[in-house]
Amino acid sequence: MKILVLNSGSSSLKCQYFVNEKSIASVTIERIGEKESYMTLHFKGPPVKHTIAVKDHHHAIVTLFERLKNTRIISDIGELDAVGHRVVHGGPHFSQPVRITGTVIETIRSLIPLAPLHNPANLEGIEVIAALYPDLIQVAVFDTAFHQTMPDCTAYYPLPYHLFESASVRRYGFHGTSHAYVAKEASKILHKPLKELNLITLHLGNGASAAAIKNGISIDTSMGLTPLEGLMMGTRSGDIDPAITPYLMHQLHMTAEEVDTMFNKESGLKGICGTNDMREVISHTEQGDEKSRLAVEMYAYRIKKYIGAYAAALGRVDAIVFTGGIGEHASKIRTLACEGLENIFGISVDEGKNSLNDPAIQQKDSKVALLVITTNEELEITRQTQEVVIHSKGNL
Amino acid sequence: MKILVLNSGSSSLKCQYFVNEKSIASVTIERIGEKESYMTLHFKGPPVKHTIAVKDHHHAIVTLFERLKNTRIISDIGELDAVGHRVVHGGPHFSQPVRITGTVIETIRSLIPLAPLHNPANLEGIEVIAALYPDLIQVAVFDTAFHQTMPDCTAYYPLPYHLFESASVRRYGFHGTSHAYVAKEASKILHKPLKELNLITLHLGNGASAAAIKNGISIDTSMGLTPLEGLMMGTRSGDIDPAITPYLMHQLHMTAEEVDTMFNKESGLKGICGTNDMREVISHTEQGDEKSRLAVEMYAYRIKKYIGAYAAALGRVDAIVFTGGIGEHASKIRTLACEGLENIFGISVDEGKNSLNDPAIQQKDSKVALLVITTNEELEITRQTQEVVIHSKGNL
Repeated sequence: MKILVLNSGSSSLKCQYFVNEKSIASVTIERIGEKESYMTLHFKGPPVKHTIAVKDHHHAIVTLFERLKNTRIISDIGELDAVGHRVVHGGPHFSQPVRITGTVIETIRSLIPLAPLHNPANLEGIEVIAALYPDLIQVAVFDTAFHQTMPDCTAYYPLPYHLFESASVRRYGFHGTSHAYVAKEASKILHKPLKELNLITLHLGNGASAAAIKNGISIDTSMGLTPLEGLMMGTRSGDIDPAITPYLMHQLHMTAEEVDTMFNKESGLKGICGTNDMREVISHTEQGDEKSRLAVEMYAYRIKKYIGAYAAALGRVDAIVFTGGIGEHASKIRTLACEGLENIFGISVDEGKNSLNDPAIQQKDSKVALLVITTNEELEITRQTQEVVIHSKGNL
Repeated sequence: MKILVLNSGSSSLKCQYFVNEKSIASVTIERIGEKESYMTLHFKGPPVKHTIAVKDHHHAIVTLFERLKNTRIISDIGELDAVGHRVVHGGPHFSQPVRITGTVIETIRSLIPLAPLHNPANLEGIEVIAALYPDLIQVAVFDTAFHQTMPDCTAYYPLPYHLFESASVRRYGFHGTSHAYVAKEASKILHKPLKELNLITLHLGNGASAAAIKNGISIDTSMGLTPLEGLMMGTRSGDIDPAITPYLMHQLHMTAEEVDTMFNKESGLKGICGTNDMREVISHTEQGDEKSRLAVEMYAYRIKKYIGAYAAALGRVDAIVFTGGIGEHASKIRTLACEGLENIFGISVDEGKNSLNDPAIQQKDSKVALLVITTNEELEITRQTQEVVIHSKGNL
């Protein structure tokens, strides 16, 4: 099946083309609407990057499709089986990928207040394609969908109950496509059906989230109403005292927006030690920089606490999965996050395997498997899109 | 030694009189400054409550001292060895109780932005007594002091580093006097020196906090810059996505103050099911009320996650201590918080002992002791005050 996966951000468009789940090519357009945009094409040889004028998302998609045809990656858009879109926020409405219809578009639009930066960009991609190729099947795969199995006691916040009804305030969770993908991969590695597995999955990229997966189902996750909550991230704070907002507004005469921006853009690793690039942070630590050391310790300690919290929530843990750029490559973070958990959880890291980013890094006698799995959200979107296509065609 | 313990709140004054660590009498004055104030005297027989006119804290303290003399509880204020004050916020300055001096008063005053409701009331009590009895030794015992042993990686938030320096933003923790008291009591029950014990102490009252105590030292606690963070409480939310504040301001056109008040006064148990009285909540649950059931589940689940998180932080747990009104009496909450932790932590509750609120409620084969300890912050303040008095006199 021929599937184009689109991730339409506020100023970028990322696309990957799959034929029968094999990635054939990828195209990224960055800095849409700015003076100088970039297009990076990755097809056969090494990636080729060049500047290009792209004034808006419509223009970006037209350009993208032209490039796919010019380079003969696709001979005709009509030959695609479907376009699969990453959509960030599905709110309480979508626990599965769906074929996009007018109603689906309106529902995604109604969720803009929950994801003011992401959903509009996602919608733009969808609507441009719907206008250009009305017969092309489009599928929305939501970042929130995987977590919609959470029970009420996890999903609800200890806030006035009416806020759930009047303002949709609850935990949604994000990175669901990644958590779902690595959970399935873990099941393959462990040779055990997913529905019999209890997992803690840690997606540690520039954004970071943890999920507690019980019998294959997400029962808790660290991100909440928005992607700000939970683990310490590259530039986002994660969990903090919610009273810090009014305190800073009062003490430093900041607006709520300024505080929110600070929590999202100037906090996390960057806030503590000045950079959100974990490779740099670790390298500075090795050079003796104290703030970098503090940032690394805080980052790992907060992961360790989530491991403990989710172990308690699950009652039994078969494996902990590390994924995302940091999860896959930063062995030091994995070491620190698991340090001291030998006696209490029977978790022990094989440092030799860990330093090589091996797929399984636990010691032989570790009661819990420790897996390092390269996430592939685009492949997961492709697979979920294919399922919707098959189901749609079956329904014709 | 004769010690008067004072807890001076915004509209109340609570006092307990100890002779050689034995509580002799207590007096509470409520609704100070309102049309009708109340005084409750507890001395020998049952408590006696009557209305009284008390216009301010100065008046309250004068009235209190008169009553102590009239009833012959104390023949002369001069015979007191010291007054011990509960002071809520000691900021980063106080990790121990201190004898109150002009400098100490100014430091407590400088911390008012961190505890705008509590520190001014605490100060008022101190200053009135200093004016009336300048020679009387006064000691401040801080709610935050016990937690000032936290390492940087726990105490700091993943926020811009300069906020620690420019606005004192960090985790301070509260209920320290209670956590310290029950930790010492646990050491007696377990017949093991405190410095060899790893404990998770859960103070569950109308406010609620957890502490991770390693070798007798607090290394982490759930309350933060303010007492809003952490566990779900009677009317406080505890941990939530910090982005909910700007979201509600935008969606529901609320001010930051209104949101803050909602998180502090209208959330927690009250927010979910309408009442902050756990006895009522549990009774409603038994009558089949769904929102009360949800509130109880959320409350216990969030405790369970802290147990897991702190178990991971500690690496070994000798005992979990339940204290505070709910911790001491709500067996259902203890059951739910420990449910499912048998296999992962070796924690198992003896339901017979639990239902009787026994001091030790674990099963014989439980790897972790589960203790129910009645907290006594006033006694702890007395003891700490005595130590300062002895130390002060030694220094004369």
